Amino acid sequence: MRAADTYGVSEGLPGYLDVTGAVLMGAEPRVTVGPGAAVSMPTGGVLPAGADAVVMIEYTQQAMTGTIEVVRPVAPGEGVVRADEDAAQGAELVPAGRPLRPQDLGMLSAAGITTLAVRARPTVTIFSTGDEVVPPATAELRPGQVRDATAVALAALVTDAGGEPADGGIVPDDAAALETALRAALPATDLIVISAGSSVGGRDETAGVVARLGPPGIWCHGLAIKPGKPTLLAECDGVPVVGLPGNPRSALVVFRLLGVPLVRLVGGCTTPPPEPVVRVTLARDLPSATGRLDVVQVRVSDGTAIPLFGLSALLSVLTAADGFLIIPEEATGLDAGTEVDVTLYR
Amino acid sequence: MRAADTYGVSEGLPGYLDVTGAVLMGAEPRVTVGPGAAVSMPTGGVLPAGADAVVMIEYTQQAMTGTIEVVRPVAPGEGVVRADEDAAQGAELVPAGRPLRPQDLGMLSAAGITTLAVRARPTVTIFSTGDEVVPPATAELRPGQVRDATAVALAALVTDAGGEPADGGIVPDDAAALETALRAALPATDLIVISAGSSVGGRDETAGVVARLGPPGIWCHGLAIKPGKPTLLAECDGVPVVGLPGNPRSALVVFRLLGVPLVRLVGGCTTPPPEPVVRVTLARDLPSATGRLDVVQVRVSDGTAIPLFGLSALLSVLTAADGFLIIPEEATGLDAGTEVDVTLYR
Repeated sequence: MRAADTYGVSEGLPGYLDVTGAVLMGAEPRVTVGPGAAVSMPTGGVLPAGADAVVMIEYTQQAMTGTIEVVRPVAPGEGVVRADEDAAQGAELVPAGRPLRPQDLGMLSAAGITTLAVRARPTVTIFSTGDEVVPPATAELRPGQVRDATAVALAALVTDAGGEPADGGIVPDDAAALETALRAALPATDLIVISAGSSVGGRDETAGVVARLGPPGIWCHGLAIKPGKPTLLAECDGVPVVGLPGNPRSALVVFRLLGVPLVRLVGGCTTPPPEPVVRVTLARDLPSATGRLDVVQVRVSDGTAIPLFGLSALLSVLTAADGFLIIPEEATGLDAGTEVDVTLYR
Repeated sequence: MRAADTYGVSEGLPGYLDVTGAVLMGAEPRVTVGPGAAVSMPTGGVLPAGADAVVMIEYTQQAMTGTIEVVRPVAPGEGVVRADEDAAQGAELVPAGRPLRPQDLGMLSAAGITTLAVRARPTVTIFSTGDEVVPPATAELRPGQVRDATAVALAALVTDAGGEPADGGIVPDDAAALETALRAALPATDLIVISAGSSVGGRDETAGVVARLGPPGIWCHGLAIKPGKPTLLAECDGVPVVGLPGNPRSALVVFRLLGVPLVRLVGGCTTPPPEPVVRVTLARDLPSATGRLDVVQVRVSDGTAIPLFGLSALLSVLTAADGFLIIPEEATGLDAGTEVDVTLYR
């Protein structure tokens, strides 16, 4: 109806309007609304010419055939969604640099956009090194052998970060073999991750090989972080290279802190999705050394964080954990009862 | 070495051990360690017979050819990981009822488990209804038509929840057509979601059709929630059925609150992954009515939550939002300055 026809109406003094037609769903209205007239219409229907407002059926009642009582006034534009109210012409529908969320896809669909230029998922080639490392499917281990636990976990972290993991395979502790494998991968990858064999020899060879792989070379070899001290960061011919410690837990802790943001950045994701973080109370004292960032796995229970301890080789600490907390470089430790932020594993 | 050979040694009074061999990486040791002897070994090597501890090379120095000085005592078992220390025989490696995390895949790989019985992703068939609804790829809209924005967003939410979305298509506002479509989907789906046409007539038809689809039928039609009041929940022949409001924003808000946990549950996920929640300060008063749960979209900036308002038809409120907060049923609103928990959209 026309809003002006409802001005001053109330429960005690209803207004009367003649119902002169109806709007059908999904079709252009064939009626025009004149003064003192109303047409019935479904939610989502198109406002007919002459009308400037909609009153909900709950605020009307049938008076006699063809006439309704309106007991509540409406303002012009009330009950109406303008065609450009959700998005005006030229408006940005979805910002760049962020993964598309369900509602973003909805908005694009509403605008008829079913194909979209997006950043390609960066290819992340994952190498495992070490004479002792054998594929996970190896049924029987000989003494001294370990199955490759790190590569598959790294691949899952890469996928979570929006990357496309590529399997570089297991390379023996041999500088020439490693160099050949890395050089072959370099032209077709966006990032290289080397999960080192746990031998000191193997790690040293990795650094030497990466140093001569391409300019500018090694950024740093060794981080003030525990676990993860022997981490190597490099860039070779425009490809970032991350050399991880040999212990599976150290490797996964470091890659989650440094590798995941790197994969996102290489993939053009400047606004990463939020991580689940809870503020809880530390259940016991946590010692630490200054000048070093400590990453501590915890279980979270009843608002408290219970630290999990274990050798850096132990994956069970990571599988038992609900999340991790960070003791900053400047702290000598955290006292029981301290409020801490725990990043939860998903 | 044998730990006993290091007892009492110090920087001032080092112990001397004869180096009688070396352990190679990834191979069974061929040496035995006798009293007063030591063998060199890489991190990750196998402890040779006779030895019961490892001293780090940093705490030794070369004395003369074939002899080392040890300046720090070690206890039996020090520097050693027992074969069953990460997981004892028969131990649970990864709990059921939770999505596999990267570290879980690592642990399984370490144990040689590369195939695993998991729950199948539940099939969630998504129907859109309404004479006005046309596919997103429709280039030109006739007056009164809208593109189907809800189905693609629901499919993304289903995928996030671990489900497999199936496209039920767009069904006109016709009870017989809807019943035929639902009956055809019922035997091959684990859950049905109906995104209603926004017409009142269409919604009523959905309830009628669902009521006769199979026992036990409708659980409830109408929820004390805003937006989302007309939501319909049913179970037909063992298949949960969710009827969503016609407005895209209402539909997505309700599905995120009720549908996502339902998809997880149907998929056997009893321990859902944690959601990102931040505690921030409400930037302005939020009115609400008691007896109704309100879901309010917000932007989060500098530790404050800024409520976004708009008609329930507007998707732009959802695309502009960083997350949402809930005003509980018993509250008449929230005052500016209240600490609120905002669930962030990923």
